[in-house]
Amino acid sequence: MSASTVVSVLELAGLYVFATSGALMAIQKKFDVVGIVILALLTALGGGIVRDVVIGNTPPAAFSNGIYLIIPLIAAAVTFFAHPLVHRLSFPVLVFDAAGLGLFCVTGTLKALECHLGPVQAVLLGVVTAVGGGVLRDITARETPALVRVETDLYAIPAGAGATIVAVADRAGLHMPVIATSAALAVFLFRILAMVRHWTAPTAPAGRKR
Amino acid sequence: MSASTVVSVLELAGLYVFATSGALMAIQKKFDVVGIVILALLTALGGGIVRDVVIGNTPPAAFSNGIYLIIPLIAAAVTFFAHPLVHRLSFPVLVFDAAGLGLFCVTGTLKALECHLGPVQAVLLGVVTAVGGGVLRDITARETPALVRVETDLYAIPAGAGATIVAVADRAGLHMPVIATSAALAVFLFRILAMVRHWTAPTAPAGRKR
Amino acid sequence: MSASTVVSVLELAGLYVFATSGALMAIQKKFDVVGIVILALLTALGGGIVRDVVIGNTPPAAFSNGIYLIIPLIAAAVTFFAHPLVHRLSFPVLVFDAAGLGLFCVTGTLKALECHLGPVQAVLLGVVTAVGGGVLRDITARETPALVRVETDLYAIPAGAGATIVAVADRAGLHMPVIATSAALAVFLFRILAMVRHWTAPTAPAGRKR
Repeated sequence: MSASTVVSVLELAGLYVFATSGALMAIQKKFDVVGIVILALLTALGGGIVRDVVIGNTPPAAFSNGIYLIIPLIAAAVTFFAHPLVHRLSFPVLVFDAAGLGLFCVTGTLKALECHLGPVQAVLLGVVTAVGGGVLRDITARETPALVRVETDLYAIPAGAGATIVAVADRAGLHMPVIATSAALAVFLFRILAMVRHWTAPTAPAGRKR
Repeated sequence: MSASTVVSVLELAGLYVFATSGALMAIQKKFDVVGIVILALLTALGGGIVRDVVIGNTPPAAFSNGIYLIIPLIAAAVTFFAHPLVHRLSFPVLVFDAAGLGLFCVTGTLKALECHLGPVQAVLLGVVTAVGGGVLRDITARETPALVRVETDLYAIPAGAGATIVAVADRAGLHMPVIATSAALAVFLFRILAMVRHWTAPTAPAGRKR
Repeated sequence: MSASTVVSVLELAGLYVFATSGALMAIQKKFDVVGIVILALLTALGGGIVRDVVIGNTPPAAFSNGIYLIIPLIAAAVTFFAHPLVHRLSFPVLVFDAAGLGLFCVTGTLKALECHLGPVQAVLLGVVTAVGGGVLRDITARETPALVRVETDLYAIPAGAGATIVAVADRAGLHMPVIATSAALAVFLFRILAMVRHWTAPTAPAGRKR
């Protein structure tokens, strides 16, 4: 199995778990099957669609390659019928989600660099690719985005760190396949560690009067 | 009156009723005139703008043909002054809304097929065209989108069925004017029937433990 | 200092205060540092990104010129550490915000006219540029957009008036640098006056039965 096959398989796994997290939230909110399908698609594809629309890469990958639609639809169908089991599997789901986070931030950054965006912009779009779907899921389900809540374990920060590694390595002309794989792995481990240790991002220091 | 004139007239009627539903929600939420205009424009044009941005058809039709802006503005103005009457006309409004749903899902699917998207992608964009404005209306007004709520009579499902008919017929090379008109009519009747009979979409089967 | 330098400086000041308003809302909602950065970027850049995506000007200016990212990030950092002071400076912040409103509606309208949109469409995009970031900020923070709330002092209406002046003057072939500067100034003064006098937009006249 080649490295690129590994990446493709993990990327599809990332789509699957992102879609599952959308479907689970829809079920938890007692949405109907339409809501389940919409949240699954939005969570899995939203970040990449926003990235592609912003860089002018239209129609987005999600609309030109059928597998990008089929995987989230399968995830929605499986979650629809098997959600009590999926709930019990919540730790495995979080592990796959961390893998998706790592892969999406790396592939998003690479795509932005290919379109000749600057390194800071590419990092930003890499993070948008990784976290955008979750934010759209939360907004549609009328939740405060998990991303901005103080009790959420580090999520955007590992993604930002991974995207930065990729952008810096691209500038330095390093061998990208190795760097990209390592960066995705580093994000994955960073996120797992943040969950296990409950690392959270700082809030603004309080003033004397509130 | 030719068939294409009929479609154009009905499409403008669809814009008008979608805008009316946005304006009515703004009034119900006690928004000011700015909020009324914004929700009217967003509901009528949002779905089509998202579709056009996704397929790279920019600027969207809503920005290149003045009538697309004028109709929702008229609807907002009429609703502003006549809203107690419009409330009393809520059933006629729902009937026009069903007509808009049928027309927008058909025209959205056709536009996506013209841009060489695959059939599944075209169906998805057809549904986005038909229901996207309403979702944006609900998110802006801080409502859980009607689309995903379990008590909502079937809405996206008729649109999806109509879009599927168009995409399949396009594959089969059938005579599109006849198919498109029939599909829009079928969606309209399906939606009306769903409202009269209170058909709702299924929710996920509950597990033993919640 | 030339007129165009003045405009550039004021535009960067507009970015700064828009970002500050996003960061302040994030702190008020007790979001973490990720939420503060996201709301700062979204508020400052959201309107312009939506405009650029709609007119097909991709990647948007926000992604092609580094200063557009750096300014909001500085604003987020300053607000993070100095927010009790910034709160005490709330009136100066509102004054700069009014300047940003004036500049962004004028530059947004001009950009749309350059892309050969009609005058009505250009006015709409000018307003979207000026108010879009604030709406995205409010939606992400789960607030009813200030823009549509009845107790908000006039905000979109000064922007719309300024955009209309620009679009009409463009049609009439007037000398744009003078017009654009005057329109931005007029919006600024209109907005300041609306705040001082608490001018609000009308709501729909109530029917006899609610």
